[in-house]
Amino acid sequence: MIDSKTISSWERFYRGNFINSLSGFKPVSLIGTKNNNGQSNLAIFSNIVHLGADPPLVGFVNRPLEAGGHTLANIETSRFYTINHIHSSFAEKAHQTSAKYDGGVSEFSKVGLHEQWVENFEAPFVAESKIKFGLSLQQIIPIPLNNTYFVIGKIEMVFVDETYLLPDGFIDMVKAESLCSSGIDAYHTVSYLDRFAYPKPNLPVKKIDNK
Amino acid sequence: MIDSKTISSWERFYRGNFINSLSGFKPVSLIGTKNNNGQSNLAIFSNIVHLGADPPLVGFVNRPLEAGGHTLANIETSRFYTINHIHSSFAEKAHQTSAKYDGGVSEFSKVGLHEQWVENFEAPFVAESKIKFGLSLQQIIPIPLNNTYFVIGKIEMVFVDETYLLPDGFIDMVKAESLCSSGIDAYHTVSYLDRFAYPKPNLPVKKIDNK
Repeated sequence: MIDSKTISSWERFYRGNFINSLSGFKPVSLIGTKNNNGQSNLAIFSNIVHLGADPPLVGFVNRPLEAGGHTLANIETSRFYTINHIHSSFAEKAHQTSAKYDGGVSEFSKVGLHEQWVENFEAPFVAESKIKFGLSLQQIIPIPLNNTYFVIGKIEMVFVDETYLLPDGFIDMVKAESLCSSGIDAYHTVSYLDRFAYPKPNLPVKKIDNK
Repeated sequence: MIDSKTISSWERFYRGNFINSLSGFKPVSLIGTKNNNGQSNLAIFSNIVHLGADPPLVGFVNRPLEAGGHTLANIETSRFYTINHIHSSFAEKAHQTSAKYDGGVSEFSKVGLHEQWVENFEAPFVAESKIKFGLSLQQIIPIPLNNTYFVIGKIEMVFVDETYLLPDGFIDMVKAESLCSSGIDAYHTVSYLDRFAYPKPNLPVKKIDNK
């Protein structure tokens, strides 16, 4: 057993790798925003969490402001942002968005991904992403415990190819080759184990045929 | 493009499958608690999110209280809980914890998983889990937007077999066969694509040898 005293005694990067792994595999995605001057911004986030389906809400954790990055400031100004799945075909480009570029450049052009704009929606989508959605800001909750921010958005529009949409509304992210991540810097492909029906007490688990 | 009007017009289960898929692959785990009478409780959660490494904080989203479940009430009383990774070997048992059992029974015994207790820590771990951690409650943030709760805990102790611990602190969850989930009911195995070094502007992404 490793106790909290031991963890806090560790060198910063070792502790970062360890604690970032613990919470499990993460839904890594690219968040697209634009600033006051229409300059686009693209940043990689893995601290994204489903909040509810009705209304459709998704949250993400933004790091302390002093850690840099323009995503939160842009969202506060424009009130809109996009979340774009990352696929095997552009994992390196997605990772490269976390390099510290100057404020005046767009990560889109620097890493070689393409902007996709929708009329009257104030944030860029990633053209290369096969599953992506646009959100309107609902609430920013400051978390004084570590100076992070929990940002909640409502899903306003979704782009998903019909190829990945099953008859019951489930999106086949394995077929779309969406990635997950772990730790700070690991990217993973994902395979099906099973889908299970809603369980009942004292009855065995039933598998769902995922077709 | 699917707009928010279309989404809100959908039948509840179709919408649930769709919106629950959108946020990406999820870090599915079992949360262990106990109530005032020492009765243990085990429930499956996928809305778990890394909040920061120093202090080591993890958050999860608890559904509205009227949706049932004893996890949040138990955490409010005992102030402690555990998060336990789910592996391929017991996915069905983990899924079965979400059946609506009466308050008087422990999901541990009902689904065939085993409690593991640590002296002076007021919540049960899952013996079968190869990566697990105990948390102390720090804050419960009510989210009036959909009556959910964002629960923040500090990692107080970690159990992880040395086999899964790499020299830089990274935990090899692929080797441990930890699962991720998608939608409401799908479970997935995970493989390595790559680890990448911290990126710098105008330099190509470097791979990390994950040994």
